[in-house]
Amino acid sequence: METRYERGLRKLSEIDGEQGERIVAGLADIAPDFARYLIEFPFGDIYARPGLDLKTREIATVAALTAMGTAPPQLKVHIHGALNVGCSRVELTEAIMQMAVFAGFPAALNGLAAAKAVFAERAPANGSTK
Amino acid sequence: METRYERGLRKLSEIDGEQGERIVAGLADIAPDFARYLIEFPFGDIYARPGLDLKTREIATVAALTAMGTAPPQLKVHIHGALNVGCSRVELTEAIMQMAVFAGFPAALNGLAAAKAVFAERAPANGSTK
Amino acid sequence: METRYERGLRKLSEIDGEQGERIVAGLADIAPDFARYLIEFPFGDIYARPGLDLKTREIATVAALTAMGTAPPQLKVHIHGALNVGCSRVELTEAIMQMAVFAGFPAALNGLAAAKAVFAERAPANGSTK
Amino acid sequence: METRYERGLRKLSEIDGEQGERIVAGLADIAPDFARYLIEFPFGDIYARPGLDLKTREIATVAALTAMGTAPPQLKVHIHGALNVGCSRVELTEAIMQMAVFAGFPAALNGLAAAKAVFAERAPANGSTK
Amino acid sequence: METRYERGLRKLSEIDGEQGERIVAGLADIAPDFARYLIEFPFGDIYARPGLDLKTREIATVAALTAMGTAPPQLKVHIHGALNVGCSRVELTEAIMQMAVFAGFPAALNGLAAAKAVFAERAPANGSTK
Amino acid sequence: METRYERGLRKLSEIDGEQGERIVAGLADIAPDFARYLIEFPFGDIYARPGLDLKTREIATVAALTAMGTAPPQLKVHIHGALNVGCSRVELTEAIMQMAVFAGFPAALNGLAAAKAVFAERAPANGSTK
Repeated sequence: METRYERGLRKLSEIDGEQGERIVAGLADIAPDFARYLIEFPFGDIYARPGLDLKTREIATVAALTAMGTAPPQLKVHIHGALNVGCSRVELTEAIMQMAVFAGFPAALNGLAAAKAVFAERAPANGSTK
Repeated sequence: METRYERGLRKLSEIDGEQGERIVAGLADIAPDFARYLIEFPFGDIYARPGLDLKTREIATVAALTAMGTAPPQLKVHIHGALNVGCSRVELTEAIMQMAVFAGFPAALNGLAAAKAVFAERAPANGSTK
Repeated sequence: METRYERGLRKLSEIDGEQGERIVAGLADIAPDFARYLIEFPFGDIYARPGLDLKTREIATVAALTAMGTAPPQLKVHIHGALNVGCSRVELTEAIMQMAVFAGFPAALNGLAAAKAVFAERAPANGSTK
Repeated sequence: METRYERGLRKLSEIDGEQGERIVAGLADIAPDFARYLIEFPFGDIYARPGLDLKTREIATVAALTAMGTAPPQLKVHIHGALNVGCSRVELTEAIMQMAVFAGFPAALNGLAAAKAVFAERAPANGSTK
Repeated sequence: METRYERGLRKLSEIDGEQGERIVAGLADIAPDFARYLIEFPFGDIYARPGLDLKTREIATVAALTAMGTAPPQLKVHIHGALNVGCSRVELTEAIMQMAVFAGFPAALNGLAAAKAVFAERAPANGSTK
Repeated sequence: METRYERGLRKLSEIDGEQGERIVAGLADIAPDFARYLIEFPFGDIYARPGLDLKTREIATVAALTAMGTAPPQLKVHIHGALNVGCSRVELTEAIMQMAVFAGFPAALNGLAAAKAVFAERAPANGSTK
């Protein structure tokens, strides 16, 4: 039977790929237990739950981080994550734009700038839209 | 052809039903133009857009308002709205719980309390879960 | 020569009237020094400065508290204060509505509800608009 | 060997006493798994860690919740919790007042009002100060 | 008769000048409709309203963005905008300093740093203070 | 007898050392009075109070700034300050990790990144942990 840690690692890898590994590695010298908690609770407990599909979970996260405006690096990680689990660029752009209604135009503008940067990182030279 | 106002009124009614009407009525004496903007921009412009279905839009909104924690009345209105457009109680509960990861346990606990209150208002005496 | 405390008390009384006294009285048993700081720094130092007139200072404060959404009681106190120093109801309603752009519609709606409550407290029975 | 759940329940009871039980009970019908997460991660993982004593942990929490201003019920729970683990009323009042510097006077005033309410609940009729 | 879009473009140009154009241009490839909404609602609807003069509107915006602390690029744009519509450097500095009272010293310090950067951009080589 | 200004300067120097001087110097041309207020109120009034030791005050501040997520430069200044007054790296890391519970994992991750940067600045070449 899979442990919380193993399940979390699998989910983290499915959603964040290499970026997840980098975040975990960055915690190794300062707070290794926190890396373990990050794998176990958000990914092993929450993201692994049934009841809401992974695409919708990632759109909810991108919307929330856009609205909060306090976590720019994590917003970019989760825009990548949303694309990794199958969200389209259009769906993400719509969810971010919608935050103008709930958190104001600056929040939405900064969210769109993050999305633009992520989209460019993933398709620097061709027309791919994933 | 439908105006922004007409389209917004239709969307507001589809999502918020009677509650939307009450919000608009409450603005009549203090800021009637703001009632019109509320109908035109959030509902006539944003919610009427293609590219993201209404259920996902409402889950994104409930997630964001839960994470922000600054708008308790609007969170309840949009939990109602999410149920009105077809989200299940389970989907909403999952999206709210997930906010513990991004905005902390207090935000999620207060979101769950709002959901519990809304669920009770809609099914005070029987086991219906919509 | 007037001390910071005396100057602050005079400003507090000019802006907040009786409400300022009640806030100070409410601190007497739990944090009397904090009542003194409240009089000295915000009112004795900041509000007493030249360079920006008192009406504009209060509009800036109402706008900021509306946008933050985390201090409903203080928002109401400063809507009263803004009216006390000569802002019109229209000017305040405009400043609050404008926050929809910068902090989202829920923030503006909650600000308008606060303004509506304050306006009603001040003119319960007739058409006075101050 | 104690499980995370058992350790969390013990910590929750040490810090929050009856109030912790009431929060957990309130989640039973809407999100029972979330009650379990609340016991396991914040209390079983974080609060059970060595490296920072429980009194300092609770002062840090009261300071943070005061500064955020978005979670009034949890602020009151943790003011109770801080007193339960041995913080004095003076220490808590100091930590809350200090937040005027970092999050503004309204945040500190609302924190002091919460502290005043909690202190009154605990010593309604005599001079006890715990 | 002027459309919302035309009126908004005129207001955006009056307030933000070239910077407004750059923001709109930056949205062209990712969310062109959002550029249109930005022109129509904030500038065509809100900023074009009578009832509050443009200088006071910009001071309210600078105060709110300083207090929120979540939108550094937009804060700089609106410090420019405030100067463009006739606010003095002193008035802006006063409004930002005042936010120490309502949102804490870090918010005010970061707002002053933004103002200092904007002032330097506008007067790199001489003593002009506009 | 020591004035508020003198007492504040002494406290600022004790907590922030050179960094405090740099902040004050940076305000000289734009808002010299604000530099004075910063010394007088936060340091001369609040930090100089008895009732809570300086180590606990700095842990409370680091926790609050981590949770707020809106003031990255000040968070780093106060991580330095906490170390200057005797907090250990472990105590700070614990307080920051704990904020995952109250403000979410992104807030804690960004706080840990700030701590990691500060720790590296202070001990670039050897194993000292202060």
